[in-house]
Amino acid sequence: MTGWVKIVGLGPGSDGLVTPEAQDVLAEATDVIGYIPYVKRIVPRDGLTLHASDNRVELERARLALTLASQGQRVAVVSSGDPGVFAMASAVFEAVEEHPDTWANLDIDVLPGITAMLAASARAGAPLGHDFCAINLSDNLKPSDLIEKRIRLSVEADFAMGFYNPRSKSRPTGFERVLQILKETCQDRRPLIFARAVSTPQEELKIVALPDARSDMADMRTVVLVGSSQTRLIERASGRPFVYTPRSVLA
Amino acid sequence: MTGWVKIVGLGPGSDGLVTPEAQDVLAEATDVIGYIPYVKRIVPRDGLTLHASDNRVELERARLALTLASQGQRVAVVSSGDPGVFAMASAVFEAVEEHPDTWANLDIDVLPGITAMLAASARAGAPLGHDFCAINLSDNLKPSDLIEKRIRLSVEADFAMGFYNPRSKSRPTGFERVLQILKETCQDRRPLIFARAVSTPQEELKIVALPDARSDMADMRTVVLVGSSQTRLIERASGRPFVYTPRSVLA
Repeated sequence: MTGWVKIVGLGPGSDGLVTPEAQDVLAEATDVIGYIPYVKRIVPRDGLTLHASDNRVELERARLALTLASQGQRVAVVSSGDPGVFAMASAVFEAVEEHPDTWANLDIDVLPGITAMLAASARAGAPLGHDFCAINLSDNLKPSDLIEKRIRLSVEADFAMGFYNPRSKSRPTGFERVLQILKETCQDRRPLIFARAVSTPQEELKIVALPDARSDMADMRTVVLVGSSQTRLIERASGRPFVYTPRSVLA
Repeated sequence: MTGWVKIVGLGPGSDGLVTPEAQDVLAEATDVIGYIPYVKRIVPRDGLTLHASDNRVELERARLALTLASQGQRVAVVSSGDPGVFAMASAVFEAVEEHPDTWANLDIDVLPGITAMLAASARAGAPLGHDFCAINLSDNLKPSDLIEKRIRLSVEADFAMGFYNPRSKSRPTGFERVLQILKETCQDRRPLIFARAVSTPQEELKIVALPDARSDMADMRTVVLVGSSQTRLIERASGRPFVYTPRSVLA
């Protein structure tokens, strides 16, 4: 039997956002590997082994996937959102480089999914409708100086921004600092969107002007979108406003 | 009857990348509006009117959608990829602002899709696995100086980059200039990925080192991904290499 590893994006939470291609892979897999809450989304069936592991063991998870595939298993590594955006795809390739002669020649594919930033953007309107950037605010894997530098340059470039992993229990203060930098450099009332658990029953969306943003508006399940200087609100008689960034910037 | 507008992302081309949510909306719509090649992807059926229009008439298309929804029609505005990424969502909200009192209170939703940049990234490995930005290289709607400024700042921030609309018949030279700026500022052999028509029968992927990149490697159906300084290749005994950006940057 020829094994494979398919690194699958499950989207932000709703079954309506899981691609048919991802569903097909899950139906063919012998093993599913991932972070506990993502593996919980997989319906158990005969012939399928579920390997759920805790956060921050991405490389161990990747090595297990590559080992099982080498033995002929059909392995789906599942991520929330898109596996190529601050998720398992890079971790698997990092592990491949530990044994490139064997593991690099395995059948490995990445299957895209709806990433949290774009699901949040759709819910709010179109805040990422012009040029934008995506920054992982976790300083587990990079220095906080680099995060700060990227945010300052992104403000100067006038990108809209999507922030992943803004805040966790082990990192309570970094996001506070990010908001302070934005307030000092932007000096305006551009909208921020705190989008939590989009497309799940726990979905919450808060839209606030930059001066009113507070770090405790975010948690581990939140992505934060920051408008550019051009991002606008459209007020509505009922319900929350639309937030969007126009396509044009005048010369 | 209560009308609505749903702005739907069809993904990059394959039916396997159309979300179930998008499929459901298309099954309920009375009208589908979009650019000719995207509307061609919709299977005709009784009770469904297809409104296909040419490129560069996004606002007219948006006004038609809002007008029909005001009259009680159920309108799907279709985009390739994700409608919130250089596609129809912002155009619809621009049109809403022409008649905010009536059109802003319509039932309008944006449904995310797999955007070309992330489909291309998945195909190549995980080049966008660390912080990245997305830039529309078309200067139809913004000055070319601003494009140049954003690219220089993105290099300084060491983002990986996704370029949409790199080149068309009416803009033959802008992308040439972009490549020249990258070559001058990066001074390395980071990989570029020219990803054409990903997930369609016309799919082509070229991976080249920056000094070897030429503007004629891109056309209207290509997205271009540019690695950061950290982006790596994993060579394989057969087939093209994996391209990925590690999750970590050392202090």
